[in-house]
Order: sequence, then structure tokens, then C-alpha cells
Amino acid sequence: MELFQRHPRLQSGTGDQLNLKPLETTAFAPASIGNIGVGFDIMGLALHHPGDEVTARFTNKPGITIGRITGDGGKLPLDPAKNTAAVAARVLLEQLGETGRGIELDIHKKMPFGSGLGSSSASAVAAVVAVNALLGSPRLKYDLLHAAVLGDQAATGAYITDNAAPSLLGGIVLIRDGATLDVHNLPVPPGLYATVVYPHVEVLTKNARAVLKPDVPMPTYIRQSANVAAFVTALYKADYALLGRCLRDDVVEPQRAGLIPGFYDVKEAAMTAGALGCSISGAGPSVFALSTRETTAQQIGEAMMAAFGKHGIKSELFVSLVNEKGAEVIP
Amino acid sequence: MELFQRHPRLQSGTGDQLNLKPLETTAFAPASIGNIGVGFDIMGLALHHPGDEVTARFTNKPGITIGRITGDGGKLPLDPAKNTAAVAARVLLEQLGETGRGIELDIHKKMPFGSGLGSSSASAVAAVVAVNALLGSPRLKYDLLHAAVLGDQAATGAYITDNAAPSLLGGIVLIRDGATLDVHNLPVPPGLYATVVYPHVEVLTKNARAVLKPDVPMPTYIRQSANVAAFVTALYKADYALLGRCLRDDVVEPQRAGLIPGFYDVKEAAMTAGALGCSISGAGPSVFALSTRETTAQQIGEAMMAAFGKHGIKSELFVSLVNEKGAEVIP
Repeated sequence: MELFQRHPRLQSGTGDQLNLKPLETTAFAPASIGNIGVGFDIMGLALHHPGDEVTARFTNKPGITIGRITGDGGKLPLDPAKNTAAVAARVLLEQLGETGRGIELDIHKKMPFGSGLGSSSASAVAAVVAVNALLGSPRLKYDLLHAAVLGDQAATGAYITDNAAPSLLGGIVLIRDGATLDVHNLPVPPGLYATVVYPHVEVLTKNARAVLKPDVPMPTYIRQSANVAAFVTALYKADYALLGRCLRDDVVEPQRAGLIPGFYDVKEAAMTAGALGCSISGAGPSVFALSTRETTAQQIGEAMMAAFGKHGIKSELFVSLVNEKGAEVIP
Repeated sequence: MELFQRHPRLQSGTGDQLNLKPLETTAFAPASIGNIGVGFDIMGLALHHPGDEVTARFTNKPGITIGRITGDGGKLPLDPAKNTAAVAARVLLEQLGETGRGIELDIHKKMPFGSGLGSSSASAVAAVVAVNALLGSPRLKYDLLHAAVLGDQAATGAYITDNAAPSLLGGIVLIRDGATLDVHNLPVPPGLYATVVYPHVEVLTKNARAVLKPDVPMPTYIRQSANVAAFVTALYKADYALLGRCLRDDVVEPQRAGLIPGFYDVKEAAMTAGALGCSISGAGPSVFALSTRETTAQQIGEAMMAAFGKHGIKSELFVSLVNEKGAEVIP
């Protein structure tokens, strides 16, 4: 549903411009695979689905308010000061000098919480994209990232960009430096599929952080830095054989695998079914695999679900090409 | 000087092939910057000069013998079992099933020892390139790498590829996995100059290894892996601004800087003179900087030498475009 009105700034204008603004806009922001195994805290990859939708509409009450939230099972805070989408939207209004605006957000959670797929980032990103569009798109996509990350921070407590950046920008994103938002879209080789299996077990991000040792052994550091450099090379060369050799995580995966019952069986099932690589998505518990055909990606997912099933764990499957567009307004 | 004779295999042949083989060949193999700061143990960059030359010629005595060695101040072993060039040549003959051949090597050291510029690698690489050419080039360049690395190992005691690979292949090389020689030439942006200053102080590689802590703190690991991934990205995009931001070593440089008197003054001088980045070449003591103009590269070098001079240290300067050809037969 889109309702249009003349933009207030143009009401006394010349009339030869048709700058129509909607009364409300809805944006979709996708789930993302943080770390992509090989690049702990420095890479992320956007999916086509699942993802969140946020609708933004003008209201008479200044500031950001929450209208309704669906799909969250009542878990998300209605207080705009604590809600990631609302915080992100408020920061954007402040950046734009539009704090006098009244905007109400509806949040439609269409992806699981605490899954390692960047759920809070997706809400924050969808909010800033919706609000930006509602205001006539004064900002380019990249320039919405800081607000989205600050929104995400309201949920996670940390300024972390490896889900927000791919969810917003799409594709495969390298975060050279989160603090300065020095982020770079890497090339996406054609036909690169992501299989994501979300097992119904709980892994709190703070616990996933707590298990990590404070140091990395030098030989592991050398090997992992070689693999992350080779991963970038493989993307630029569209060299799937190389990508398969380097898509591995010798640093974090061994430390977090124990948080996901059956992880190594699931990984073996994915590799046997033809995955280029398989690791933990973000802080888990979702496990992802990459491959190069839709049928393979689907078979990998079914094998992974079956492996979780042998451990008595139900799971959900998402199969998606890498989403090169990222967040977008829904027409 | 090149003398030609008919290849022995063709002496009873059909005669319609003109496969002339020289009686001797000389190959040049360049110095290289191991690590390139950002990629400890996984990257190297080839220079145009300095470098070593090795002449290979047939003799009647089977096996590899050393003829004469120049430029080494009497330091290199004449025993073929201990000499890097001879070991590399012997391994190549074994690989080719040509151990009945008698080949004599002359080694012309034209670069400093123990400088952090891959001196032993250059000798080993020049030897295998010369011998391969002498035998009618049965092998492509890449397939000479294993023999060269084994030759290098005779000097260093370790199977390390980050000097041999760039010296042989040229350009900027990523070593994903040394054991399987999974090495990749990365793109060289146009006009990328290396400035290398070799200070006359001694840093033994084994000491440079000994100072390294066994672990890398996790935040440093994350930052450095982001920079190495961004370095590859910068090379592919020919993005010098990005290259300048990521050409840094937060892991090893702080631990080795103390082995090079005045290092931080030299680095500051390089950066002030316009370097994109500056760090230690290999295990040191040479210090390198990258930049994008020949005049800048020269000025950087003079500033670095002056800074060493203030610490009472004499030094030598080498300025070179990145050498994209690598080792080659000298006509």
C-alpha cells in the first residue's frame, strides 16, 4: 500500500517538478552471514531471505514511535529508546537535522532471533532505509550505515558492522575498520549459493564471545591470514577451487563448535553433499555452507538438517543466492 | 656469451627440428620483500634489483659442482651439499630424472647477505632457472618453485616460500599454503615503487624469529586480518588510498623494531616523505616503503638513509618498480 502526497517543500514551488512523497514506505533488509567462517569480525554476506520489514509513516507526534511489531512473539521492546529499529531511525533523523519530524515504525520480524543471522541488524537497516525513503532519499545507502550500526548497538551493546554492512549494501562485504566504516564490497562470483540451517538451540552472543581465548597461536594466525587473503583473491578471480580450499576457520570455529550440538556431523554432511566450505554463521547457532548450484545448495541443506535431526535437534533451512542488492524499498 | 650445440637427443633425429641448446646459460633472480609488512609469512614482492646471477654449464663430471663464486666475500659454501644454489639444482635434476647430467654452477652474488631481501632464495631461484634453461626448458616457471625452496631450505633450515616465490614468479605473491605451493600472483597496480634501505647492522633470521611471542592477541589478529584482506582488495582495485590505510603490521613489526636501531625514526622519515606505508623487509634489517612515483620513492629512500645516519648507521638504497617478470634468463 502506498499513499502519495505532494512534498511539503514543493507546495509553493513552480509546479513543473513532480516530486511525490509517499505517506509511508516499507523497506526489506536481509539476514546476513557474519564472519563467513574465514573472516572473523571482518566480513559478512547478505542473503535474499529471510529478512525483516519495517514500515515508516509520518505522524504528528515528533520523534520516533513504534506502531506495531509482528513476528517477534512479544520479545522486542516497544520503548523507542531500546528498540534497535527506533534507535537507528532516531540517529538518522538527528544526522539529517530532522528531529522535528514525527515518524512511526511498524516492525515485521520475518526471521529468527538469536540465530546468528544478524536479526537486530536487519531491523535497524530496514528502519533507516524506510525512513530515508520516506524523507525523499536524502542519503545514499552507504551513508545510512552509521545510524544502522548505532541502532544495532542498542541491542548488542557493541559497535559491530559485519551484519549491518552486508544487510544494507548487499553482496560480500569486507570491514577493514568498523570504527571509520571503512567497508568494501567484494566481487560476488556468479552462481554462489548460501545454505543456512538454523537449529533450534540457543547460543547467546555474549556466551559465544565468552568462550573465545584472548590469543591466537602464531601458526594459526599465519594460516588464517593466508586463508582470508586467499578468500578475497578467490572472489576476485571467481576461482571456486581456491575458494573451497580457503573457506575455513581455524581460529574461532574450534572454540565455538561445542556450543552447537552435532556441529561436526552437520559440517561433514554439508561437505559430503558438495559444499565448498561450511562453518558457523556469526556467533551461531546457525551453520552455513557455500556452493555453486541451487540443487546442490538444497541437497546440502537437507543433509545438514538430517544431521541435526540425528542429534534430536529441529532446524530451519534457508537457501539463497548471495543477495547483491541488499536492503531495498518494497514497491 | 652464449655457445650453442645440437641437443644430444636430436643428434640421431629427423633433422627437421632446430632445437639448439646453449652450452651455458645465465639466469638472474631478484631480491624480494618478504611479508610486505601486512602479510607475515604469506606474501612477498619482487624487486628489479638487486639480485643474484647463476651461470650453469654442462661438464663431464656427473652431478652438480660449483665452479666459482663471486661477490660473497668467501662466505658461501663450495660444498654442493650445503650450497643453496647447488642443492636447488640437484633437486631439479632429480625431479627431471637427469641425475646423470654433469652441471657446473658459477654463482655471482650481487646483493647483500642477511639483509632481509631473500638473498639465499635469489641464488636458489637463479640456479633452477639457469639449469632449466640449459636443459631446454622442460619445466614451466611455477614448476621450478619446489626445487628452489628446497635449495633455500639448505641455507635457512625452513621450507619457506615467501622470498623464493616472488623471486621466481615476479610481482606480488600470496602464499596460501607453502607446503602445497598454493601460491597466487596478485595484481600489481601500475607505478608501484618499492624503496628498500639496507642498514649495515646484523639481524640473524633465527634471532628475528626468537623475539616473536607465540601468540597474537585476538583484537590484533582481527585488525591485521582485516588489513591483509584489504591489501589484496586494494591491489585488485588499484586503490592506493586503501593500500596506504592497510599497509601496516601490528603483529610482528612492534616485536622486531627493537632489533633495528632507529627503526621508528626511519619509518617516520619514510611516511613524511610520502610513503604509502613502511615496514621491515622479511626478518630485517632492511626497511622498505611503497609509493607511487619514482621521484617520491627516491626521496623516501634518501630520507630513510638520513634517519639511519642520525643513528650512526650506514645504509644502502635500492629503488625499484615492482618486478613483474621475476627471475629470467639473461640473453
